[in-house]
Amino acid sequence: MNLQAICSFFVSGQNITLSQQPRVRQRLALGATPRDIDMNGDIASGQMYVQGFIQQHPVSPVPLVLWHGGGMTGVNWETTPDGRPGWLQWLLDEGWNVYVCDAVERGRASWSPYPEVWPQAPLFRTKNEAWQMFRIGPAAGYHSDPGRRVAFSNSRFPQASFDDFACQWVPRWSGNEAITLRAYHALLDKIGPCIVIGHSQGGGFALDIARQRPRDVLAVVALEPSGAPDTHPREASYPPHLALWGDGFQQHVRWQRYRQRVEIYFNWLRAGGTRVDEIDLPALGIYGNSHFLMLDDNAQHLLSRVTEWLTSLACIQAARG
Amino acid sequence: MNLQAICSFFVSGQNITLSQQPRVRQRLALGATPRDIDMNGDIASGQMYVQGFIQQHPVSPVPLVLWHGGGMTGVNWETTPDGRPGWLQWLLDEGWNVYVCDAVERGRASWSPYPEVWPQAPLFRTKNEAWQMFRIGPAAGYHSDPGRRVAFSNSRFPQASFDDFACQWVPRWSGNEAITLRAYHALLDKIGPCIVIGHSQGGGFALDIARQRPRDVLAVVALEPSGAPDTHPREASYPPHLALWGDGFQQHVRWQRYRQRVEIYFNWLRAGGTRVDEIDLPALGIYGNSHFLMLDDNAQHLLSRVTEWLTSLACIQAARG
Repeated sequence: MNLQAICSFFVSGQNITLSQQPRVRQRLALGATPRDIDMNGDIASGQMYVQGFIQQHPVSPVPLVLWHGGGMTGVNWETTPDGRPGWLQWLLDEGWNVYVCDAVERGRASWSPYPEVWPQAPLFRTKNEAWQMFRIGPAAGYHSDPGRRVAFSNSRFPQASFDDFACQWVPRWSGNEAITLRAYHALLDKIGPCIVIGHSQGGGFALDIARQRPRDVLAVVALEPSGAPDTHPREASYPPHLALWGDGFQQHVRWQRYRQRVEIYFNWLRAGGTRVDEIDLPALGIYGNSHFLMLDDNAQHLLSRVTEWLTSLACIQAARG
Repeated sequence: MNLQAICSFFVSGQNITLSQQPRVRQRLALGATPRDIDMNGDIASGQMYVQGFIQQHPVSPVPLVLWHGGGMTGVNWETTPDGRPGWLQWLLDEGWNVYVCDAVERGRASWSPYPEVWPQAPLFRTKNEAWQMFRIGPAAGYHSDPGRRVAFSNSRFPQASFDDFACQWVPRWSGNEAITLRAYHALLDKIGPCIVIGHSQGGGFALDIARQRPRDVLAVVALEPSGAPDTHPREASYPPHLALWGDGFQQHVRWQRYRQRVEIYFNWLRAGGTRVDEIDLPALGIYGNSHFLMLDDNAQHLLSRVTEWLTSLACIQAARG
């Protein structure tokens, strides 16, 4: 890949002044003596981190923006847990300009003190829960000993690297949807028209932002969005949508419910004249995909489906000129 | 820059089983109904995140490894807060292979529940403290209103972007030195011989690791290391060291103490025959540098001093063949 620049920046966020915080005495430098630390004062809160990869000769003037899911960071798009190139690498090899986000509260975006700034404590996702919520195997199939785990027999997830995957997870808060959406808006204010690819919670945010800013979002790709706006879209037509769905829904009541809500929203969109395409992988004879489509063993093939769909769109072809 | 790959991986860390955690009921997906969340089970803890940039035609087979300071992440090495290219970009433009770390507990490395796994609560650095600890201005010079802040008159720090810089900061724990060092060792186990560039707390860690692994660390560059090993080095000779020091020490008793401890260590090294070079910028007539040398307005010039020093070393020339 021939890159002109690798850049990063923060968007959104505000200054918060903390008071009535403890003064503590702790050692901070290697081998030094403890020192007084006063935690009263100003901090940044609610910012989002963005890492940008800008091509020397981009394949399109329209950048791709990658939004991870809940309790995750932009690392999801990088090397897979078992060491294969991730979607980021393939997209850069194809010549796309790409922005990868760490959403508010996660990874390099940092997080704010609780209960002082965010009222609740964060949630730490266990491997036990993830094993079944990510549809890698049945709930009873998880075991602390990797050798004793039971995955679905046709699972495409790199399950031998599941513990490495767990290294990517970060704590999450359930009350930060509004400030997260505010940061995504600020990103679009800054970079302008783009294509958004969102996974899970990030897919739900992508659907919401596409409805709010149809002029800035030229197309949306939602990988197993876990949610969707629950109000009827107001305008007649929105940018084209593509959703991808993996396998294992028939055994998973919660995922069936999540998906039903998204399908209701998609039907609203279609009724208004918006193009909504869906790739239901098992219906195409492709079995065993988990919730993490971009990490599964056919991730590169799935990405090629996405980029074929994108490059077929009139709006993307028009932008290329 | 002509890159072959942008990769990422995690090193170190262990599985921890949490018990007696609360079961909570919260809404996690956009517009969904709340669901039960059981936080009892296994999590990853103590891992470190590494992002690697691999050149198509590297200028040297020896990679550079960049270690940030306390309460920071690898973002420190990227675009400066005022939007200039950071050291990472310049190094990639020069053709170096570079690994950037988010150390244990920070950024994409995630963090662990307290007090369940880490006994203490983290420390949030205030802008008030940073203004003087980073030697941008006097303690009384900080104000919440950016227009009313008073920096040192010759400050080279991009102070108009100080609030953007604060977006980079993450909470820190004071008890995690051992697990952080363990992760740095695991990184060297994985990548082999390298050059370590560390800033502040990361500079102290770099000095420690260079002493422990003189065969894997071919050279150390410490930017204002805040600490150093407090025991006399055991062997006769260690890899070459370079330290850089900014301005403003004469007004700052804490930084004088930190530096004194490092100078004692350097003198031990020199007595044993190790090459230790120091660039004391004010002594060279270069005034106004803050603690964040790689963000100051002369950052590119300072990096050229570092790379000139590195490329002059016999061990680096030998590796190039």
